[in-house]
Amino acid sequence: MTEISCELIKAGKTIGFVPTMGALHLGHLSLFEAVKQYADVAMASIFVNPTQFAPNEDFDKYPRDLKKDVEMAELYGIDYVFAPSNDEMYSKNFLTNIHLDGITKVFEGERRPTHFDGVALVVAKLFNIIKPHYAFFGQKDYQQTLVIKQMVKDLNFDIDVVVRPTVRLENGLAMSSRNNYLTDDEKEKATIIYKSMLEAKSAISLGERNKEKIVKIIVEKIAEVPELKIDYVAVVKQKDLSEVDNFVSGDEIVILIAAFLGKTRLIDNMLITV
Amino acid sequence: MTEISCELIKAGKTIGFVPTMGALHLGHLSLFEAVKQYADVAMASIFVNPTQFAPNEDFDKYPRDLKKDVEMAELYGIDYVFAPSNDEMYSKNFLTNIHLDGITKVFEGERRPTHFDGVALVVAKLFNIIKPHYAFFGQKDYQQTLVIKQMVKDLNFDIDVVVRPTVRLENGLAMSSRNNYLTDDEKEKATIIYKSMLEAKSAISLGERNKEKIVKIIVEKIAEVPELKIDYVAVVKQKDLSEVDNFVSGDEIVILIAAFLGKTRLIDNMLITV
Repeated sequence: MTEISCELIKAGKTIGFVPTMGALHLGHLSLFEAVKQYADVAMASIFVNPTQFAPNEDFDKYPRDLKKDVEMAELYGIDYVFAPSNDEMYSKNFLTNIHLDGITKVFEGERRPTHFDGVALVVAKLFNIIKPHYAFFGQKDYQQTLVIKQMVKDLNFDIDVVVRPTVRLENGLAMSSRNNYLTDDEKEKATIIYKSMLEAKSAISLGERNKEKIVKIIVEKIAEVPELKIDYVAVVKQKDLSEVDNFVSGDEIVILIAAFLGKTRLIDNMLITV
Repeated sequence: MTEISCELIKAGKTIGFVPTMGALHLGHLSLFEAVKQYADVAMASIFVNPTQFAPNEDFDKYPRDLKKDVEMAELYGIDYVFAPSNDEMYSKNFLTNIHLDGITKVFEGERRPTHFDGVALVVAKLFNIIKPHYAFFGQKDYQQTLVIKQMVKDLNFDIDVVVRPTVRLENGLAMSSRNNYLTDDEKEKATIIYKSMLEAKSAISLGERNKEKIVKIIVEKIAEVPELKIDYVAVVKQKDLSEVDNFVSGDEIVILIAAFLGKTRLIDNMLITV
């Protein structure tokens, strides 16, 4: 893989890279479509990365269908798919970890304490293998995009991180590989997450500036579907996920939501300029 | 710096890189001389990296003379010197750490618990900035070379790590920037470290295979100079610094020594094939 990239770079080509864990959906495909707007050559990786799953999480049952994923990647213009094995990525005598402070401690990082370090590690490895000029991530994992940007800056990766909007079904459900765990009925119920964020956005546009009141709007809306158990609802600054009690006009904020539907954990977010 | 490297890579040139903390001595210069045997373009960095010093260590008084160092680098064929400021390398909102388990826990890592993580961090940053094909390190910091090689492998840096022999004065003293802290008399006294390793090597060549006996030979020899206070003496496997009680013919081992002379801490090592 690295040899291919080196040859392309020497030939003056730019490389765009989409790291994925497979189980490709419209969200990934929109990233694939974006790559060619930035780079000459489009690459994707398909690797269900064990280091970002905790022992109690869904690593084993995470959906895998490499053949179908590769076909979809090819259809959407990906020139090279890198699909390593676990042993290729993590040798027996693997000793290196990457750890980020601060933004990895809250929300997803608080619930999944080793998650972002695992993400940072595999992304750093993939960056060194693929040597991309541009790397593409979905806004759906908003906190992850902050972690990646921070690592790229701190470790001086010479890579532009491009974040693309969340892709949703017409009913508002955010595309996610974990939607595969949901029944059709549950998928419909999960749309309350998006609806709750729309209500909050509407209240903000009508003048609501108090964080607690905005959170309350969301929590009460989600409560209309009792099967959904909220893990957290937060309304924070986009830049560093910091909390303030009252927003002011011009604040760039993000609503972050995590909720369980049965055993399936769903996350979603919405960017709002107050 | 990265733009320069990218242009060179696109032009098909290979880059050789020597990271240094300045205070250049013959050890560095032998690395500079080696670079051109491997690579088209020779680069060096001069940066006294704060993250590899503990608060009680000699970061502030570490010898610095950038002008002289740059002149020496130029004389020895270095094409580009990268000498960033602390603020350029570590922004106010810096959050990323690299940590290696195992080999960083013993010997130097036990005495300087944050040292190797700081080394790994700055080297990873420099690798991403400089984008070298070859990186050169001195055998003098033997454990450090193991840490760098492990990180390069684990994080998939596409870089060949080249380790060059320790350069010594005729009396056996290993070249080190910290020799600047020693008086001429102390420099002479410090040669007992090298002499003790020669005695051990000689005993091994005469058939000694017992680790404790080899260590005893070294400790007793160093005791001839009472000003030298041993921090540790170890005789271990080169590959992973593992300990065995008795060696067998063909074992590739390394003697590791750290000792204080006044406030100055000296380290040295010798590779031996039994």
